[in-house]
Amino acid sequence: MREILQKLIKGEISPKKAEKLLKTMQIAELEDFAKIDTGRDVRTGIPEAIFAEGKDDDEIIKIILKIADKGRIMVTRLREEKYEAIKEHLHVLADKGFKIDYNRKARILLVKDHEVEKRGKIGIITAGTSDISVAEEARIVAEEAGCEVLTAYDVGVAGIHRLFSHIKKILQEDVKVLIVVAGMEGALPSVVAGLVDIPVVGVPTSVGYGVGEGGFTALFAMLQSCAPGIAVVNIDNGFGAGVFAATILNSMDK
Amino acid sequence: MREILQKLIKGEISPKKAEKLLKTMQIAELEDFAKIDTGRDVRTGIPEAIFAEGKDDDEIIKIILKIADKGRIMVTRLREEKYEAIKEHLHVLADKGFKIDYNRKARILLVKDHEVEKRGKIGIITAGTSDISVAEEARIVAEEAGCEVLTAYDVGVAGIHRLFSHIKKILQEDVKVLIVVAGMEGALPSVVAGLVDIPVVGVPTSVGYGVGEGGFTALFAMLQSCAPGIAVVNIDNGFGAGVFAATILNSMDK
Amino acid sequence: MREILQKLIKGEISPKKAEKLLKTMQIAELEDFAKIDTGRDVRTGIPEAIFAEGKDDDEIIKIILKIADKGRIMVTRLREEKYEAIKEHLHVLADKGFKIDYNRKARILLVKDHEVEKRGKIGIITAGTSDISVAEEARIVAEEAGCEVLTAYDVGVAGIHRLFSHIKKILQEDVKVLIVVAGMEGALPSVVAGLVDIPVVGVPTSVGYGVGEGGFTALFAMLQSCAPGIAVVNIDNGFGAGVFAATILNSMDK
Amino acid sequence: MREILQKLIKGEISPKKAEKLLKTMQIAELEDFAKIDTGRDVRTGIPEAIFAEGKDDDEIIKIILKIADKGRIMVTRLREEKYEAIKEHLHVLADKGFKIDYNRKARILLVKDHEVEKRGKIGIITAGTSDISVAEEARIVAEEAGCEVLTAYDVGVAGIHRLFSHIKKILQEDVKVLIVVAGMEGALPSVVAGLVDIPVVGVPTSVGYGVGEGGFTALFAMLQSCAPGIAVVNIDNGFGAGVFAATILNSMDK
Amino acid sequence: MREILQKLIKGEISPKKAEKLLKTMQIAELEDFAKIDTGRDVRTGIPEAIFAEGKDDDEIIKIILKIADKGRIMVTRLREEKYEAIKEHLHVLADKGFKIDYNRKARILLVKDHEVEKRGKIGIITAGTSDISVAEEARIVAEEAGCEVLTAYDVGVAGIHRLFSHIKKILQEDVKVLIVVAGMEGALPSVVAGLVDIPVVGVPTSVGYGVGEGGFTALFAMLQSCAPGIAVVNIDNGFGAGVFAATILNSMDK
Amino acid sequence: MREILQKLIKGEISPKKAEKLLKTMQIAELEDFAKIDTGRDVRTGIPEAIFAEGKDDDEIIKIILKIADKGRIMVTRLREEKYEAIKEHLHVLADKGFKIDYNRKARILLVKDHEVEKRGKIGIITAGTSDISVAEEARIVAEEAGCEVLTAYDVGVAGIHRLFSHIKKILQEDVKVLIVVAGMEGALPSVVAGLVDIPVVGVPTSVGYGVGEGGFTALFAMLQSCAPGIAVVNIDNGFGAGVFAATILNSMDK
Amino acid sequence: MREILQKLIKGEISPKKAEKLLKTMQIAELEDFAKIDTGRDVRTGIPEAIFAEGKDDDEIIKIILKIADKGRIMVTRLREEKYEAIKEHLHVLADKGFKIDYNRKARILLVKDHEVEKRGKIGIITAGTSDISVAEEARIVAEEAGCEVLTAYDVGVAGIHRLFSHIKKILQEDVKVLIVVAGMEGALPSVVAGLVDIPVVGVPTSVGYGVGEGGFTALFAMLQSCAPGIAVVNIDNGFGAGVFAATILNSMDK
Amino acid sequence: MREILQKLIKGEISPKKAEKLLKTMQIAELEDFAKIDTGRDVRTGIPEAIFAEGKDDDEIIKIILKIADKGRIMVTRLREEKYEAIKEHLHVLADKGFKIDYNRKARILLVKDHEVEKRGKIGIITAGTSDISVAEEARIVAEEAGCEVLTAYDVGVAGIHRLFSHIKKILQEDVKVLIVVAGMEGALPSVVAGLVDIPVVGVPTSVGYGVGEGGFTALFAMLQSCAPGIAVVNIDNGFGAGVFAATILNSMDK
Repeated sequence: MREILQKLIKGEISPKKAEKLLKTMQIAELEDFAKIDTGRDVRTGIPEAIFAEGKDDDEIIKIILKIADKGRIMVTRLREEKYEAIKEHLHVLADKGFKIDYNRKARILLVKDHEVEKRGKIGIITAGTSDISVAEEARIVAEEAGCEVLTAYDVGVAGIHRLFSHIKKILQEDVKVLIVVAGMEGALPSVVAGLVDIPVVGVPTSVGYGVGEGGFTALFAMLQSCAPGIAVVNIDNGFGAGVFAATILNSMDK
Repeated sequence: MREILQKLIKGEISPKKAEKLLKTMQIAELEDFAKIDTGRDVRTGIPEAIFAEGKDDDEIIKIILKIADKGRIMVTRLREEKYEAIKEHLHVLADKGFKIDYNRKARILLVKDHEVEKRGKIGIITAGTSDISVAEEARIVAEEAGCEVLTAYDVGVAGIHRLFSHIKKILQEDVKVLIVVAGMEGALPSVVAGLVDIPVVGVPTSVGYGVGEGGFTALFAMLQSCAPGIAVVNIDNGFGAGVFAATILNSMDK
Repeated sequence: MREILQKLIKGEISPKKAEKLLKTMQIAELEDFAKIDTGRDVRTGIPEAIFAEGKDDDEIIKIILKIADKGRIMVTRLREEKYEAIKEHLHVLADKGFKIDYNRKARILLVKDHEVEKRGKIGIITAGTSDISVAEEARIVAEEAGCEVLTAYDVGVAGIHRLFSHIKKILQEDVKVLIVVAGMEGALPSVVAGLVDIPVVGVPTSVGYGVGEGGFTALFAMLQSCAPGIAVVNIDNGFGAGVFAATILNSMDK
Repeated sequence: MREILQKLIKGEISPKKAEKLLKTMQIAELEDFAKIDTGRDVRTGIPEAIFAEGKDDDEIIKIILKIADKGRIMVTRLREEKYEAIKEHLHVLADKGFKIDYNRKARILLVKDHEVEKRGKIGIITAGTSDISVAEEARIVAEEAGCEVLTAYDVGVAGIHRLFSHIKKILQEDVKVLIVVAGMEGALPSVVAGLVDIPVVGVPTSVGYGVGEGGFTALFAMLQSCAPGIAVVNIDNGFGAGVFAATILNSMDK
Repeated sequence: MREILQKLIKGEISPKKAEKLLKTMQIAELEDFAKIDTGRDVRTGIPEAIFAEGKDDDEIIKIILKIADKGRIMVTRLREEKYEAIKEHLHVLADKGFKIDYNRKARILLVKDHEVEKRGKIGIITAGTSDISVAEEARIVAEEAGCEVLTAYDVGVAGIHRLFSHIKKILQEDVKVLIVVAGMEGALPSVVAGLVDIPVVGVPTSVGYGVGEGGFTALFAMLQSCAPGIAVVNIDNGFGAGVFAATILNSMDK
Repeated sequence: MREILQKLIKGEISPKKAEKLLKTMQIAELEDFAKIDTGRDVRTGIPEAIFAEGKDDDEIIKIILKIADKGRIMVTRLREEKYEAIKEHLHVLADKGFKIDYNRKARILLVKDHEVEKRGKIGIITAGTSDISVAEEARIVAEEAGCEVLTAYDVGVAGIHRLFSHIKKILQEDVKVLIVVAGMEGALPSVVAGLVDIPVVGVPTSVGYGVGEGGFTALFAMLQSCAPGIAVVNIDNGFGAGVFAATILNSMDK
Repeated sequence: MREILQKLIKGEISPKKAEKLLKTMQIAELEDFAKIDTGRDVRTGIPEAIFAEGKDDDEIIKIILKIADKGRIMVTRLREEKYEAIKEHLHVLADKGFKIDYNRKARILLVKDHEVEKRGKIGIITAGTSDISVAEEARIVAEEAGCEVLTAYDVGVAGIHRLFSHIKKILQEDVKVLIVVAGMEGALPSVVAGLVDIPVVGVPTSVGYGVGEGGFTALFAMLQSCAPGIAVVNIDNGFGAGVFAATILNSMDK
Repeated sequence: MREILQKLIKGEISPKKAEKLLKTMQIAELEDFAKIDTGRDVRTGIPEAIFAEGKDDDEIIKIILKIADKGRIMVTRLREEKYEAIKEHLHVLADKGFKIDYNRKARILLVKDHEVEKRGKIGIITAGTSDISVAEEARIVAEEAGCEVLTAYDVGVAGIHRLFSHIKKILQEDVKVLIVVAGMEGALPSVVAGLVDIPVVGVPTSVGYGVGEGGFTALFAMLQSCAPGIAVVNIDNGFGAGVFAATILNSMDK
């Protein structure tokens, strides 16, 4: 950089030229930084993931084959018919020893060549049967990111009596974070946070109708919760909840 | 009516004239009906009420003086400074033996010359201190409409431990309807409805901030409730909740 | 509990251990409470119900077979093609003497082994033909919860002339609650509440287009109603309206 | 234009120059059109009007003095304190023989040097006392635009019994258009339109609270109305309703 | 009524009985009014119409057959496949001499046994090709309600040059009302209203994407228009616009 | 015009007649203006374009055949199955020497008989694979409007390391405008605008779910950006972004 | 419970009576549970807090005096003028040795009689100067809940160059959680989460205008973030973020 | 970096330590980049600016004094009373030769010690008087960023006749960009863009009421515009529009 500025002072280059060179140089430094950073995903333990919605079959296949070289890849929001359409193109990975798992409920395709070591426990609770799809997305990504996951599905707030025994069992297992998935009025995370003293990650789901359609009521109710110790991720974002829980375990582990 | 049609047939009046006469006649019949109906407010036991917001002091005074002849009137949403401005104009009613009560918390002015006989019991529960204003509005109108009212304020869901003993006491008193007032995430009516088997009327309040500002989160959460036996009134509508509860007692009473 | 605290004082357990034991103990007490509470649904007279949307065929069948043991179950929002897919799996219940009824209009599957005794009358009114589906949902659940139901469908506000005779007939029958179902501008409940003095439960429907799409205009108009004695349930929530009306009859009956 | 093109062909001007000349020429033609059009306001009979909100006192005074030369000007949404601040600056107009009227309720300042000839009748109905401000705005502008105006204020839908006699009186007067002003659930225009067979112009007002705050419920209910013969203007837009009604009379008159 | 009250005074009936009798009597009067009113639709000239969306084929057929007795019926929002499904059931009407017309673009089925006399002219303008469907709905209902209709489709604002000659032609024909249909930014009605001095009825359409999806931008822009003489109907509500325009002609005609 | 006014003064025509003549005359002048203006599209270099959504196949074909006479036409938002349905009708244009290109990803059909001269360079960057469809729409229209386009797709903000090298390459090429396409949280344009000092045109896309569904989060985040030098077009409006960028180059070029 | 059931069987009490007794008994058990639970707040280390908005001065004073007995209380959202009004009433606490601190920026009043032991470190970063108020609220509650807090205020994204050195410093200190406070487009949490591998708690603020007014753009952008490891609390909810961060440290500590 | 990795391989440091060192090192590199970048604001010619809303007087003064060292600073959204409160603290800058200008209409405080060289022309047009405040903000920032600015205020679309001559004058001056400021229905930018072939930057304003309140109608109408060559900035964001226009001139100039 000094070089450029000296050339400028000596009049060997025009101010405009100098400015352009400096700009280019700065970007180059950032680029170097970027190269170093490519190791980040591996270090943090969260597998590379792609979001299938809005992508063509061809694009998805190309990305899987390319990223799988790093050892692991998750494809989220992959509807069953799309999976059926692309699965035969993944034989080449199977031949290389990759394990290829599609979870219909979670709509996740997982391609990996090694198992992950578990570093701690988290719990996942859902209010209703219809929220399980989102919860399963959270479970799979959290497991791949090194969490042992305890689940208690369909323990909704209306039938509060199903809730207590599940929470008791989960807490006895020394879980460090609870992911609570709920649609409708989204009250479950508040109730749970009132009973435990570990972090609760609320995941609103788009299950519901009328004023609850799209999940905004559940989202806003969780954000507005009077109970302490709750934070929230996007509607239906099981993936984000799983990653966030794993990041907490990660941070504890350091 | 036959008369008009016969004149039409005889050609004594034009079709246009006939049409106009018929129209006028129909409206006249409706008008007669209206006259009969003026007794309705007294029969149902709900006092005549006016909403003070958006009205000049002059208009409010004029309406009070006029309607008070019927024996009772409530002025709702009357801010304290407005009450101070108009109260001297009500001496004439005091002189006639009217009782004049202003409730600062509920922002209600009550003018009446007789007490109401109680016909049954209802309960009112609020989640927090800030919801009391709306609850008091409900209490006063319900009492004026013939309900004995039991209240349990500030028993919010975050501190769920304050809730149970209050509900127990209220239920032992044989209340027929519960009004539950809550802002923030609006979860209290759902929780209460899960514990009792009498009708719960949810009143969302505009207490809250961020996504809860204006009370829509509380409203939508109550509408979306998984618990059975809940219906809802408008945000901050203590008046409507009180009237609705009284109407239920009314209907039972017949 | 005293035991734990004494052990703590004597130093036999660490404070952390004591805290964990106490927490577990509390949850256990709640669990006991939950067990007692399982009788609630039977006592209140409202049949167990599941919401079919967002659930797989397998899940629905499993839940029906399990809950039917209690004598009765309703499956709501069950589209016809879904019913066709699961009905053969219900033969086992038919063999046990269960009655299996699917109402296409209301999209409700009802499985039961006994009839319910009626405790009183409610009325259901709809504004238009398109609202009947929601009204039928309300009718079936109210009947199963012990109400005798009088209906007057398609008496919308635009043709106000169809409304009056129906209301007259319904009121002569000594109904205690009116459910009024309306989409579009949602004005019918206000008009009805202006004519009767029994509680009116408004059910907004998603029938409409443009600004009325989704039912929010109807919902907000009902909540904002100037007429006394109205409370509201979620958009298209015939189920909730039926349960709420039944809860009022229930409460009267005690 | 041909001239320019010929110069272009002869190479006397560059294509860029020609393009620029043509563009300028077109705008000039439009400008000529604009000059002709300045007579429009006078011909249509609607007085020039300015909207006071968001304008400084100085700006308002300057505009009034300038436009008053045309004989008439209305200043709408002029709060009382603003009027007090500017009124002394209008003496010069009073001295010229202008009549200067400020209507506090309608928040309109009217400056004019001649009266308008009436061309027909319209009616204005409001649901409640709080809607009168908007109705008065409509009345004044309609009168200035040549309408004789019959009013019936505070005949709201909840007390439907006050409505019928007013409509009867108005219809007997041969009014051609009805402006119906309503806040809250906005049902009055629908009810009125179901009773008359002349055009109904709905004006939603921002009177209301909770879900009705801002007037959107009233607006959407009117737009969604099942009754025939209704069109709507913006929330609180008394001015627009008055102009629209006058335009209908205008159009009839030709 | 006097009879009931005298019986009450004499103690022959209880107050409760009296109250019930009075209520029933009032409703009966309203019912009588309703009977008189059934002639209204014929007098105003607007054909009975039903909205097909949300109705079963069976329901639509039943309603057509029933209402057609009055001479005319329109079925709006009837998709082509639905029309194909029901048309064979209408042979019975064809045999009685009814004319049966289905307009695919407007999605309207018209069944009638007589032509309507025209009472005046209106114009319909659309911004783009995609708005024609809504415009045709307006045209057909307006024609059936007695309007002669001039149309100028696809004269959108972006290509403002197509607009002027059409408006000139329409105005020369002495039209009394203009319906202007526009989606996207909804600017056309404002521009047109700035050029003419007859009433402009704006019809926003749901044509658009992104922020314009659903038609709210067009609706709000029309409501917010600075140009005088505009009122608006619901999004895509060609039917309402046609009826409103016909009502204006109607009112002129009296 | 003088002629008309003189006739009026001499009493040869009535004031009404004069008014009508004047109005017609003004419109005629505007019409003349419109005729001149038809050359505009050619001059500005932006091809005539039609939006296929909401149009029938027949309408699209008719418009293409008609406008193609001007040398070039783009059909945007043309889904593949629609293209398949109409393509055989375009043979007549192919026979005339037109080039007919359909870009599946951009959903654009381009019909033209000449190539456009390039006037400068712009860059297009997308955050993710799913945004490419919108970016391609921008690219094609920008190329047809005379821009040389450099693209860098899928350089999203989460993987910020892919961004820097692409920006460096693009800036070295002396591009004058950057179009940045992004869905989800829409942060990419802000980040890019913080690194470059040329205009950034943000294009929010509807890629996303939960709170991001429909693209409003991306749109609002871009509008709200703290970084200088950003302006925004409608959600998914690649077409508008391409035209805007071309207009900047155009303006520079003059 | 057995007792009650036996009485029922022996016919000593009616089924209705039995039902009521059972209900009361269940509530009593819950009440016992509640008593145990009152120790919870102390154990978890989060001080009792009350939200001042919507509460009268009297109510606030009463609550402070009552709760302060537990050793510590925070009053949040307490505007300076309100603090001035109540502070003299707190002398009695000062006399008892309580420390009374009012933080004007954070609008928090803290009353306590002991210091808290720190258990670990968290960091708080704000985008702009205007966000500091919310950040300070988070800092104070986190400190009171046992966190050592490192802050880096005003390191917004537009001037990204201020960000990096601060993050470096914070990470070197072994912080376990980062709270990132941002208004406007809310991009800072995403950028930070892309650079660190510890949990990031996003706090959107209502700083902003136009589309950003109220903080919804910031909230939705954070929820929609592509970067991993983010969860979000309500708009302006510094309190909730502080509690959530402390809960994570708490959970690590067990 | 190699050093760290070698130490790791030799076992001199643990993997955890290495990871931490690498992370720190990367951030350090970014920090170096940031230092280089501090010259950016000066180079691009856009003055440092701070947004006054939400900041204390003290904070504003401190920032001004600190940043003014760079030669120039703008304080935007600074209400007059705030300016009055801080102006005496700026004497020290005046003494150093800084020019201190406060523009009441634009609510901008400008502090600078040198004039900027102009590089080209832009135009600014407003629809109404009430939009001038936003336009002036745009003008001042654009001038400070090196633009010569031509303005034409109050040429709104309703009185379209004022528009044409202003556009003609502005275009004759060879402006390169037009900023068009408009509230209400936001139609002006579309109309202008249909008449010119240079880039149009739309600035929606919050002027309006009812559906137009807050400026969303204007914003969405501009985004949805059918006319080519428009991009938009945030509501009331005169600052952003000025910077964007200057960035275009900047980019042309290179």
